[in-house]
Amino acid sequence: MPSSIPGFHVVIPAGGAGTRLWPLSRAGHPKFLHDLTGSGRTLLQQTVDRLLPLTGAGGVMVVTGERHVDAVRGQVPEIDASDVLAEPSPRDSMAAIGLAAAVLAHRHGDVVVGSFAADHVIDGTELFESAIREGVAAAQAGYVVTIGIAATGPSTAFGYVRSGELLGIDGGPGVRLAAGFTEKPDEQTAAEYLATGEYRWNAGMFLVRAEVLLGHLAVQLPTLHDGLRAIAAAWDTPDREAVLADRWPTLPKIAIDHAIAEPVAAAGGVAVVPGDFGWDDVGDFASLASLLPGTDDGAHVLGAGALASLVDSPRALVVTAAGRQVAVLGLPDAVVVDTPDALLVTTLAHAQQVKSVVDRLRTEGRVELL
Amino acid sequence: MPSSIPGFHVVIPAGGAGTRLWPLSRAGHPKFLHDLTGSGRTLLQQTVDRLLPLTGAGGVMVVTGERHVDAVRGQVPEIDASDVLAEPSPRDSMAAIGLAAAVLAHRHGDVVVGSFAADHVIDGTELFESAIREGVAAAQAGYVVTIGIAATGPSTAFGYVRSGELLGIDGGPGVRLAAGFTEKPDEQTAAEYLATGEYRWNAGMFLVRAEVLLGHLAVQLPTLHDGLRAIAAAWDTPDREAVLADRWPTLPKIAIDHAIAEPVAAAGGVAVVPGDFGWDDVGDFASLASLLPGTDDGAHVLGAGALASLVDSPRALVVTAAGRQVAVLGLPDAVVVDTPDALLVTTLAHAQQVKSVVDRLRTEGRVELL
Repeated sequence: MPSSIPGFHVVIPAGGAGTRLWPLSRAGHPKFLHDLTGSGRTLLQQTVDRLLPLTGAGGVMVVTGERHVDAVRGQVPEIDASDVLAEPSPRDSMAAIGLAAAVLAHRHGDVVVGSFAADHVIDGTELFESAIREGVAAAQAGYVVTIGIAATGPSTAFGYVRSGELLGIDGGPGVRLAAGFTEKPDEQTAAEYLATGEYRWNAGMFLVRAEVLLGHLAVQLPTLHDGLRAIAAAWDTPDREAVLADRWPTLPKIAIDHAIAEPVAAAGGVAVVPGDFGWDDVGDFASLASLLPGTDDGAHVLGAGALASLVDSPRALVVTAAGRQVAVLGLPDAVVVDTPDALLVTTLAHAQQVKSVVDRLRTEGRVELL
Repeated sequence: MPSSIPGFHVVIPAGGAGTRLWPLSRAGHPKFLHDLTGSGRTLLQQTVDRLLPLTGAGGVMVVTGERHVDAVRGQVPEIDASDVLAEPSPRDSMAAIGLAAAVLAHRHGDVVVGSFAADHVIDGTELFESAIREGVAAAQAGYVVTIGIAATGPSTAFGYVRSGELLGIDGGPGVRLAAGFTEKPDEQTAAEYLATGEYRWNAGMFLVRAEVLLGHLAVQLPTLHDGLRAIAAAWDTPDREAVLADRWPTLPKIAIDHAIAEPVAAAGGVAVVPGDFGWDDVGDFASLASLLPGTDDGAHVLGAGALASLVDSPRALVVTAAGRQVAVLGLPDAVVVDTPDALLVTTLAHAQQVKSVVDRLRTEGRVELL
């Protein structure tokens, strides 16, 4: 077990329907509640397993929607119920992470808060831990810190962060100034980014001192700041529900990247730590396939392997979540996702377009399947 | 309603697992018991509906396996229980049709017997009836008569029958001598056949006087002939089971084409009636798709159409037999057959190779799914 990092707290925002993983991921049972890698642990559980040793007991907080609170508590009983925060309604990532930071600041003072998605996969514990330790050092020095992931190719599915000069931070020898963030590029642009050696994937992992974050918020989005402070002050009191009902609906809906990372980077306040561990956001079925062990002909099965009968279908991905036999004949790169009430058949090349099926079902009024 | 044809009886051999339609068709619930055209009637029921008006009440007999007798009786209650003959074990088409002919000869004398598969689809009632009437006339004149189907293309899935000279049969103006039968040809050969104008598909429909058939059998396969005569004599007596147990296992396993059609044709005893009605043996999923009404982009759904959500998948075939939502994205020509305990995903181009999946499952010991 690694030693925990003093003054380090973690918030895990657990939201997002994982639409591109339909019908495996549903609004009522989203991606983070699933064991998508066949490891025996769900993505949320793996995220907690990875971070709790670094914070020590009591150092991990989860922010999730009210409908998922019971499932989260059931999956990670090692997290105290008081550290599972329920959002009354989704108001995007800045409100979720800001709420946790404000509650942590109220409870513990100016600790370092790291934010890590509940539904990403990471490979390489030691590299991950060393990046976090560097990130905490940079956060303690006053920076908003992002982890820049070593790109394995010119992906068009992720945003990029550009690294600038080394900052010479004590305990963070690899930490550089973040020269800026970019949205998801086209493939040509992504390749140009990588050729410079300066760009890494922005995986949405942030580390920052609670008061630094709240200070930036007070400047950038005072309404959000004031609301979060008021809610945090009431959180552990009988007034929580009343204050939440009053203030939560007024909070601006905005992503943390737009609210903090981009404007603060422009002012020289964001640092980037190189993360050379494996990372995947399990964003679609092509990504999921790449995370599963393959058969001799490069096929992948999530679920009982005996239920998949593949003939002349190399690189196919089969998810046997309904307990039925699934036979695939003559369809290389097929994606077959079999669940008790809905079946998806597509190809790896269409993995990014699964949302169009969900849109179709919504149009057809089949909301109970979403 | 057409008038019935005096002295005309029909036997419907109802066997065959329909392996290429797995998992829709199973050994325990084969193709003929299914409504494969969405008409509301199963293939067996449609076959009886088509033929009973031509024979009149009491004129249609079904020969099937013991395990299917109850299902057959349930589907066609208009056929008297004494006219549903159970084979103790499958011994190929000559034994099945010969048994029916021998029982009919014993009960009714030298009637004309027409044999029609339980699991084919026919389009064009009047053309069908006129072909049958011509065929009965040729059978009464002493010929073994086959219906030659007008080919819609150079199919490699069917055998062909070659027509010779007109026979000038009273009541059968189109009846010609059958110059010979061929096995399933390759596409080049099939095209050459069609270019001559002399070849038609052999759909396995035969008409022949019962005593003519039994006379040919006595010459060609005396063991089969003697066994069938003995079984038929005992059929409507308390001795049936004992004689069946004694003789049935001794009967040669042979198809009627090899047992009768080919050798008798070589001796000039087979006639062919042109059949210009639509015909399909529903042999595989490509064939099934061609029989179903299409959507705007040429897709086909068997089952509840609302359960199929097709996006960018023109010409796909979806069978929604499990009551679940089936979404297909970006797979033109896909075949998705959804049943409660097994799912098949393939393409129209692989329709003839579905047997390889069944073979795989047998190898894997999943016989309960076959």
